Amino acid sequence: MNTTVRYANTRPAVAAGDAMTLPANFYTDPELFKRELRAVHYDMWLHAGRTEQLPEAGSYFLVRFAGVNVIVLRGQDGEISAFNNTCRHRGTLLCQEHEGKIAGGRIRCPYHAWTYELDGKLVGAPNMEKVEGFRMEDYPLGSVATATWDGHVFINLSANPIPFEQHLAGLDQKFARWGMADLKRVERRVYHAKANWKLIFQNYSECLHCPIAHPLLNKHSHYMSGDNEPPQPTYLGGRMDLRPGVTSLTMSGQSNRAPLPGLSEEDARHVYYYALLPNFLLNLHPDYMLTFQLWPIAVDRTDIVCEWHFHPDAIAKPDFDPSGAIEFWELTNQQDWDLSDRAQEGISNFGYQPGPYSNREELLFGLDRWVQEKLARLD
Amino acid sequence: MNTTVRYANTRPAVAAGDAMTLPANFYTDPELFKRELRAVHYDMWLHAGRTEQLPEAGSYFLVRFAGVNVIVLRGQDGEISAFNNTCRHRGTLLCQEHEGKIAGGRIRCPYHAWTYELDGKLVGAPNMEKVEGFRMEDYPLGSVATATWDGHVFINLSANPIPFEQHLAGLDQKFARWGMADLKRVERRVYHAKANWKLIFQNYSECLHCPIAHPLLNKHSHYMSGDNEPPQPTYLGGRMDLRPGVTSLTMSGQSNRAPLPGLSEEDARHVYYYALLPNFLLNLHPDYMLTFQLWPIAVDRTDIVCEWHFHPDAIAKPDFDPSGAIEFWELTNQQDWDLSDRAQEGISNFGYQPGPYSNREELLFGLDRWVQEKLARLD
Amino acid sequence: MNTTVRYANTRPAVAAGDAMTLPANFYTDPELFKRELRAVHYDMWLHAGRTEQLPEAGSYFLVRFAGVNVIVLRGQDGEISAFNNTCRHRGTLLCQEHEGKIAGGRIRCPYHAWTYELDGKLVGAPNMEKVEGFRMEDYPLGSVATATWDGHVFINLSANPIPFEQHLAGLDQKFARWGMADLKRVERRVYHAKANWKLIFQNYSECLHCPIAHPLLNKHSHYMSGDNEPPQPTYLGGRMDLRPGVTSLTMSGQSNRAPLPGLSEEDARHVYYYALLPNFLLNLHPDYMLTFQLWPIAVDRTDIVCEWHFHPDAIAKPDFDPSGAIEFWELTNQQDWDLSDRAQEGISNFGYQPGPYSNREELLFGLDRWVQEKLARLD
Repeated sequence: MNTTVRYANTRPAVAAGDAMTLPANFYTDPELFKRELRAVHYDMWLHAGRTEQLPEAGSYFLVRFAGVNVIVLRGQDGEISAFNNTCRHRGTLLCQEHEGKIAGGRIRCPYHAWTYELDGKLVGAPNMEKVEGFRMEDYPLGSVATATWDGHVFINLSANPIPFEQHLAGLDQKFARWGMADLKRVERRVYHAKANWKLIFQNYSECLHCPIAHPLLNKHSHYMSGDNEPPQPTYLGGRMDLRPGVTSLTMSGQSNRAPLPGLSEEDARHVYYYALLPNFLLNLHPDYMLTFQLWPIAVDRTDIVCEWHFHPDAIAKPDFDPSGAIEFWELTNQQDWDLSDRAQEGISNFGYQPGPYSNREELLFGLDRWVQEKLARLD
Repeated sequence: MNTTVRYANTRPAVAAGDAMTLPANFYTDPELFKRELRAVHYDMWLHAGRTEQLPEAGSYFLVRFAGVNVIVLRGQDGEISAFNNTCRHRGTLLCQEHEGKIAGGRIRCPYHAWTYELDGKLVGAPNMEKVEGFRMEDYPLGSVATATWDGHVFINLSANPIPFEQHLAGLDQKFARWGMADLKRVERRVYHAKANWKLIFQNYSECLHCPIAHPLLNKHSHYMSGDNEPPQPTYLGGRMDLRPGVTSLTMSGQSNRAPLPGLSEEDARHVYYYALLPNFLLNLHPDYMLTFQLWPIAVDRTDIVCEWHFHPDAIAKPDFDPSGAIEFWELTNQQDWDLSDRAQEGISNFGYQPGPYSNREELLFGLDRWVQEKLARLD
Repeated sequence: MNTTVRYANTRPAVAAGDAMTLPANFYTDPELFKRELRAVHYDMWLHAGRTEQLPEAGSYFLVRFAGVNVIVLRGQDGEISAFNNTCRHRGTLLCQEHEGKIAGGRIRCPYHAWTYELDGKLVGAPNMEKVEGFRMEDYPLGSVATATWDGHVFINLSANPIPFEQHLAGLDQKFARWGMADLKRVERRVYHAKANWKLIFQNYSECLHCPIAHPLLNKHSHYMSGDNEPPQPTYLGGRMDLRPGVTSLTMSGQSNRAPLPGLSEEDARHVYYYALLPNFLLNLHPDYMLTFQLWPIAVDRTDIVCEWHFHPDAIAKPDFDPSGAIEFWELTNQQDWDLSDRAQEGISNFGYQPGPYSNREELLFGLDRWVQEKLARLD
């Protein structure tokens, strides 16, 4: 069944000593972690969720990670926007549930009833009548930039975000054929890794560990088949081949679902793995989309939200069964988070010293340099 | 039943931008918290307990909060005094139970049997005979200042406490009619708030949130009826009116208890709320006293001890039932600590920025300035 | 039964104020704790285990404490060696089980299959063929020095360890008669003390607390019978007398085991207590050996591994019953760790100040000075 395909290691050679892993403090120092947050996560576009989570005006969900709590909502005009989940009066948390519907279409602080429209405008501030010069228009909710792309909702905490198009850097064109906007979420699992967020990225960005850690994945897709783009300023990624006879990444390697409607025959022979820095991993299979959000919680803790999305036509079929895809990635995820946790533990060891990357770990080395450059640009 | 009473907002106006909440680090920075402890809690008179907790010579209780463990006891002479709960030999904790009776009338260290009188004098130090020049009188227990006021026991950790009378600043005269020394504790509840100690104070020091958060309280006492004294160096406080027909703050607004014996008819129409900085909240109702101790545990943790005290004549009656008063404040407390926890969470958010106080939050602004001044006076 | 023996306090007198306990930060400051680790634990010979834990080639156990994870193993040549438990490629933890057998006689990283011989040599590094100039001989496992003494295995994390003989400083000669290499471990118990590692040492290094805290121990051995050597650069210790009629430290004070074969009649009347700095406590009884490893975990946490070792001839007897010795030390240990925890709590108290050592606490004062000198020598 698994016809042997030979893959040559065609990526450019590197010189020994030129590409080494990061010093330990990048994985263990809480202060450096805070600097990374400022340089990276508080500066860049973050995947926040999917438009289907916001079906109507007043629908919202929260984005929570280290030091951050943001309300993402759909406004009266149908547009998606985002705000700091903090009242402008005395700082009280406004929304407590992870997701839901804003009651009455206005965000009302439970403490003193300061009340905001869904566009963030302050429209009620009881008992401020004797504050001379107080104007409600001076105290809107803190606005957080948003953008959408084929059903994906992004936020940006920076006061001056780079244009979202610059962040996407053409990925919207590249993946237009997958029609991601049409897909529907079928499963959501949250994992709590005991590892720095960069270790999750690094684990994702090479498949040299696949024959060792993921025998089933390697059975379905040869680990050397991965073909990466050169590292980009905002993303890293590439694609791997499904082995002959394999139609998707599921437990059996088979799927009774048709490929997504817009795909070419050639598209359907690959799985695309793209990491949009700094928190979004996108796996495009012939018949479904897998997404990961990585949320840094502490220097050695990362929450990972994994979601499986399918085409509505497939979901509507009586024999729709996503379990093969879900179990396949549940198995693979557990293997990966276990390795990431072990890497965190080993790097935290007194005896750790930076080691050499191979030429096929060029995305990891690119990520490391990129983090260092972001830090260097911090004031 | 609740006849409408109109209350005007007669407090002086403030200018917008002049009275803003504190920066986030006052609520989130562990180092600033330690500085506050030194400037405030290790310098000022703290409510420690009630004299009834020390019925006889040798009775003691412990005061424990961030970095502090003090024994408060009644000595052989009947006087109350307090000592660091740390042996002068090698620093061992002397008393481990929260309260009790000192066995044998002497405090004996469980490690090497160094033994202290109840006045702190070292009277036994085995095996020190070959330490030349060692004198037991050089190693008494570390003394902590104490004072009492109408049954309230206070301690002061400073080496040079301000006179207690200066701390009370006339409150003893003001509240003499309530005869607090005669009251007996009937209930004690301990709450663990996930909030900075100042947030508990701030919550206590305004009633603008009452109609929103405390509908029952507002039904019994109009939230605008609060009439505050100007902020004082050691206390903040004022009084509110019971609505017509309401006789006390209980679930029903009624009480079958007589007002405390010394009160005038006018006294019995009010509830007095006083915050003695930095750890004591005193609520005087017509027929009972409610006390709160606030114990800072960490920058975002505060333990709150709430106690209900009644007159012995009321307690002695066959139909004495404190449950209406206890349930009323249990309900109100939970509402308040929940809001304080939410304020802590919102202020810890990346997006928090200081907001404007109204003219009716003048006590909070006074507290904030007072903390800043105390910090500025630290060496 | 317990004939009275009089012991004079013959140790040299000290002057009051000359020998005081350490300031509190030596027991509470996480940064000072890290400096101590570098000055002490990462620099000195540490007791790691017993040779019997490594019965054959490929047997291993881990040494884990604050910031450290080391594999101690027996190599193909039968020699014991130790390595950082961290892959030289990307830092992954290599061995996860606390002890066991290295499968296949080679240490293989679970992430990318870098593979090491038992002597640490890298012999497999897949996919590194296009790293120009990469040589496997440049990436052996990080080596950790080892030494053995009469069945005891020591490791040293320093790049330039002092010679082990210098560390032993003649103790091997002194205790040769006990034949420790022949003894076999019968029991192992792990305790988690809430105390700084130095407090465990200090508790061990004086018996003034014995009549108060350990009545049974004092019944078997007079607390003043302890006769200490002058403090040495690498160890502190001495011996105490068994009371007349007492043959060992067990619950009953009796033992049906013969003294260890090499002991003189005089040897068998004493218990030797030696603290090899910074992590090994050695108690030599006439008929068994008790060992303690102290592992600093945090500034206020220490893990303690206590093991009971007996002679194989005694173990082989049908009436062999170690329970009297185990229960005796279980009781004594619990009493000691409780006191150490209380000392930690009292020293952490705001009111702690250094106190005076007696002339019979000279080992403790020696330890304190020694720690300060080690810290002073840090760069």
